[in-house]
Amino acid sequence: MRAVKFENKHLFYLDQTELPSKEVWRECRGLKEGFEAIKTLRVRGAPLIGVFAAYCLSLHLDTLPPDKGKFLKEFHKASKYLESCRPTAVNLSWALGRIKDTVSHYKDYSVSRIKREVIKEAGKINKEDVGLCKKMAGYGVKLIKSSDRILTHCNTGFLATSGDGTALAVVYKAHKMRKKIMVYACETRPLLQGARLTAWELVKRRVPSTLICDSAAAYLMKKGKIDKVFLGADRIASNGDTANKIGTYNLAVMANHHKIPFYIVAPFSTFDLNLSSGREIVIEERGEEEVKKPLGKFTIAPESIKVCNPAFDVTPGKLITAIITDKGI
Amino acid sequence: MRAVKFENKHLFYLDQTELPSKEVWRECRGLKEGFEAIKTLRVRGAPLIGVFAAYCLSLHLDTLPPDKGKFLKEFHKASKYLESCRPTAVNLSWALGRIKDTVSHYKDYSVSRIKREVIKEAGKINKEDVGLCKKMAGYGVKLIKSSDRILTHCNTGFLATSGDGTALAVVYKAHKMRKKIMVYACETRPLLQGARLTAWELVKRRVPSTLICDSAAAYLMKKGKIDKVFLGADRIASNGDTANKIGTYNLAVMANHHKIPFYIVAPFSTFDLNLSSGREIVIEERGEEEVKKPLGKFTIAPESIKVCNPAFDVTPGKLITAIITDKGI
Repeated sequence: MRAVKFENKHLFYLDQTELPSKEVWRECRGLKEGFEAIKTLRVRGAPLIGVFAAYCLSLHLDTLPPDKGKFLKEFHKASKYLESCRPTAVNLSWALGRIKDTVSHYKDYSVSRIKREVIKEAGKINKEDVGLCKKMAGYGVKLIKSSDRILTHCNTGFLATSGDGTALAVVYKAHKMRKKIMVYACETRPLLQGARLTAWELVKRRVPSTLICDSAAAYLMKKGKIDKVFLGADRIASNGDTANKIGTYNLAVMANHHKIPFYIVAPFSTFDLNLSSGREIVIEERGEEEVKKPLGKFTIAPESIKVCNPAFDVTPGKLITAIITDKGI
Repeated sequence: MRAVKFENKHLFYLDQTELPSKEVWRECRGLKEGFEAIKTLRVRGAPLIGVFAAYCLSLHLDTLPPDKGKFLKEFHKASKYLESCRPTAVNLSWALGRIKDTVSHYKDYSVSRIKREVIKEAGKINKEDVGLCKKMAGYGVKLIKSSDRILTHCNTGFLATSGDGTALAVVYKAHKMRKKIMVYACETRPLLQGARLTAWELVKRRVPSTLICDSAAAYLMKKGKIDKVFLGADRIASNGDTANKIGTYNLAVMANHHKIPFYIVAPFSTFDLNLSSGREIVIEERGEEEVKKPLGKFTIAPESIKVCNPAFDVTPGKLITAIITDKGI
């Protein structure tokens, strides 16, 4: 099961806004559709966004003028446009950066050669991501004992990456090794990625699991029902401060209070070593409709109430027990 | 604006499950309807449940056999039945206890006298509750400075009591005194009382306010946007351990971490001095549909995922800065 497929120069994606009730595949037929797919969270998960954007940009090159000067100018414009659609996810700019480096490396070759190399590079990013997931799972699983009860948040599985995921890849690996784990998935308001996506993945993979509201996490911790917390990351500063889905910092504070190990699982590319601390991370604020009208289905609050809807928060490195990357723990 | 009305021996209530989109008034025409109205949270809020149950029981007496022995036996059966519908809310058993005491006090009088006295007692409970709210607001408002930004959870206003509320009564009093407060209301999953009821009340009363997801609370605290937390309570043990809506303990841990004062506002009757600590408080676990299908509107999670849905949690007294009651702080 993969959430993005690139076949014969056609880019397909599983529309994650339709889950868990329907599995709808869509084709991305251009830059604007790609931008929209990421912006509206049909394609989501930091590593998957990177792979998807790289493919999307590589397809876009076919629509550019054959004159190399114009081609390069339009390419950079398109790359910047795609990069702007989710400012917090570092993998997006990282993947697009690799495409840009490829273009720059082959800039003295023909336009058709540049295009071929870009598609090759996008394929490489995809394949590497699968490998990274395997490596993270291999390192992370060493931290899991038999019968561990693991809390997670948002979605960090095969819907978020090209491979088995980040935090959830660790869970899948432990399950495969028959470690008898139980996973508690926080529903993750406002967009309910935990309820819609993680619960769906866990059921598909037959991992024993329980869904909870975000507000019930400390209750379970106090009752001694959580042994470890495993989460993903969208951006990590060089001091370990970690931007991730809103609610992550809530859980970090609670885990710290209950002395429960709190782990982040993310590819090394999630580190943004240009940032000395989390204070420099730009937090995306999203529209109030996500809160007032969950999944666009029905209104739960009065029309005129103001809303504050940050998409991410930053957890200080000192609250994180360890960060598991493809390069080790 | 009151959420329960008793007029000419007819008991009416505002159906809170229809808010904020519709204001629907219903009549409670018997014991079973009263039980259902409380069980399904059409009438909710610990103090309001007590008043409503007392009225409901007083009406029920008219349907009992005139023979005094049978009358008393049926009365006690009915009282026990009503008391069983929300085990955590101490006000319910407290209010029904007062009705029972009244019956016991007048047991040597005629059945019709007993009925009259019971209705009188229910009216007294109602009136007293209005007075308690005023007293709590008076004490609590002393803790609020001009320009304070106050975080609250669930609903503790005029939809939860016979008067202006508990924690929200403090807010209303501060607003009336032109203290220029801003209220942040947590939406309060799973039943969204914050989004549906508190946001609705705050808009009605024109108090500057902002709605947030429960998962965004620590983010705001870290940004220095919360000065104080004001919450209600469903049951308080003699050591100060406090049972309240699920998510309260989350907020207490976070407030503690950020050194933000955390206040509980509740009538003195919320204390259950039979309990030495919160460990003895029975926590009601509710059905999984509340989580999987918010407000019964649409499914957000796969059918087969297990759910853990505690309705309350217990906050240790040591995390509570002060408890504001009608008898003082």
